Amino acid sequence: VPRHEFDLIERLRQSASAHPRVTLGIGDDAAVVRFLAPAEALVTVDLLMEGVDFTLDSAAPERVGRKALAVSLSDIAAMAGRPLACFVAVALPRRGGFELGVALEAGLSKLALEFDVALAGGDTNTWDGPLVASVTVLGETTGRGAVRRSGARPGDWVMATGAFGGSLLGKHLDFTPRVREALALHAAVTLTSMIDASDGLAADLGHLLDESGAGAEIDEAAIPIAAAAHAAAARDNRPPLAHALSDGEDFELIFTVSPADGARLHERPLFDTPISRLGEIVSGSGCRLRTRDGSEVALPSEGWKHAFDEPP
Amino acid sequence: VPRHEFDLIERLRQSASAHPRVTLGIGDDAAVVRFLAPAEALVTVDLLMEGVDFTLDSAAPERVGRKALAVSLSDIAAMAGRPLACFVAVALPRRGGFELGVALEAGLSKLALEFDVALAGGDTNTWDGPLVASVTVLGETTGRGAVRRSGARPGDWVMATGAFGGSLLGKHLDFTPRVREALALHAAVTLTSMIDASDGLAADLGHLLDESGAGAEIDEAAIPIAAAAHAAAARDNRPPLAHALSDGEDFELIFTVSPADGARLHERPLFDTPISRLGEIVSGSGCRLRTRDGSEVALPSEGWKHAFDEPP
Repeated sequence: VPRHEFDLIERLRQSASAHPRVTLGIGDDAAVVRFLAPAEALVTVDLLMEGVDFTLDSAAPERVGRKALAVSLSDIAAMAGRPLACFVAVALPRRGGFELGVALEAGLSKLALEFDVALAGGDTNTWDGPLVASVTVLGETTGRGAVRRSGARPGDWVMATGAFGGSLLGKHLDFTPRVREALALHAAVTLTSMIDASDGLAADLGHLLDESGAGAEIDEAAIPIAAAAHAAAARDNRPPLAHALSDGEDFELIFTVSPADGARLHERPLFDTPISRLGEIVSGSGCRLRTRDGSEVALPSEGWKHAFDEPP
Repeated sequence: VPRHEFDLIERLRQSASAHPRVTLGIGDDAAVVRFLAPAEALVTVDLLMEGVDFTLDSAAPERVGRKALAVSLSDIAAMAGRPLACFVAVALPRRGGFELGVALEAGLSKLALEFDVALAGGDTNTWDGPLVASVTVLGETTGRGAVRRSGARPGDWVMATGAFGGSLLGKHLDFTPRVREALALHAAVTLTSMIDASDGLAADLGHLLDESGAGAEIDEAAIPIAAAAHAAAARDNRPPLAHALSDGEDFELIFTVSPADGARLHERPLFDTPISRLGEIVSGSGCRLRTRDGSEVALPSEGWKHAFDEPP
């Protein structure tokens, strides 16, 4: 019995659970999501490609499906928003595509359930190419609005959740998007700017500084280095600090707050996820690193720049 | 000078024009789109793959970019909604990817401008694979709500815009999504059900009937056959009618209305796009075709089913 895209869609449709905000989910030409009052909708989309963002040799498709949603939830978190619904477009390899689609959906749906996000639509295709999955997440801002990258001001503390580096050893597939942390922070203090770390701590802090038109001074000793960064360092002899600054795919939040708010967060933690004060915003541009020996160096914002080849 | 994904994103950001409903567009972690009152958001996503939905040999990338948006606008039209913003995720071939991305965006943006849709975000990636483009469109319902596939009732007229068949000869790249027609119809009459024809007239009418729990009787003589269906027939010796019923990618609207509303639409056309009465909804299920010689045959809903290979 040949299996068809329609069978996969019908399966998804059957398994999709009701969501109070989704009037119409999988099965029509578009999904309908209700906004109960004048509202700001948040939308983000990410595309994951086999061989670039994951390999099916090293990651079970459930983990790939989970990651495909998690990266977009992380973007909603970076705006301090609430995710509502997700939409999944996939190009499945023709051979074994049905089973792959089912497994992807299982991993994605488990995370969606955890964050009360409806799987409300998508587009299922097959081809002779590798697996490609695009996930769109629709969310909403809280009453306090969206937190942008652009509001950091001199004097603000630069803070971050969690620890950095070595994500490719596993965390990049299994990280928990910081949605709850972002909402808790947004409710408790005034977040002047925020970004999620996907390109790397140095690169993403650089983006935040560029958008804010400001600089930063960061203490080497304050940078939270993940255990995985040490493991990665043992493999390639680059210092753990270099991994923490440039590996990417950490999916932690980097944010700025006033010193008073920062001190409050340190005194009374809002959640179990650790937060660190990395340094402070200064006028000017770019980031400087205060090293342990007391010197200061410019911190190059080397992240995950994927160079295009020059055309012939 | 190597060119980077960031350069392409920066270019898109510079060229994106302001849109009254987009508070925050390209350049942050998510876009912010305002809903001015309690509202129903419409969301649809489509994924187009090189070698499946288009080939870059036969279609300039501007046309591919245009099509990538047009198919999603057609989905919003099928709900009788207003499109607001689009989000484009691409996997660009590493070689020549920058130029390809610029050309795609040019084609897409031209159509977006035509429909007052903001290009508000996306995800730009490169890899060694073929071109993949995913377009998400966020829209809103009018005050009359969304038109679903499921509301057709016995006695309703089955109607359609435009003509069918032979789309692969060119229309599939250059069609005009029926957004304006759908909004005009929705304002003037009660649309009991609607779908856009992407899988083929027979298949998509079949979807509408399945969702409505009803059947239909269609007149062979009433089916609007496109000139391109005749051209396709001349090439492969299949009858033009077969092309009209099963070719797919017509992106016309198939909809149902009461006989009174149908008659009104015939008497006073709302727009230049022709509309046809194909037949009527009956109780039961499936579609029957009344042929020119007065006989009746079951109309198989053969569309664009892409069979998966069985796993080994």
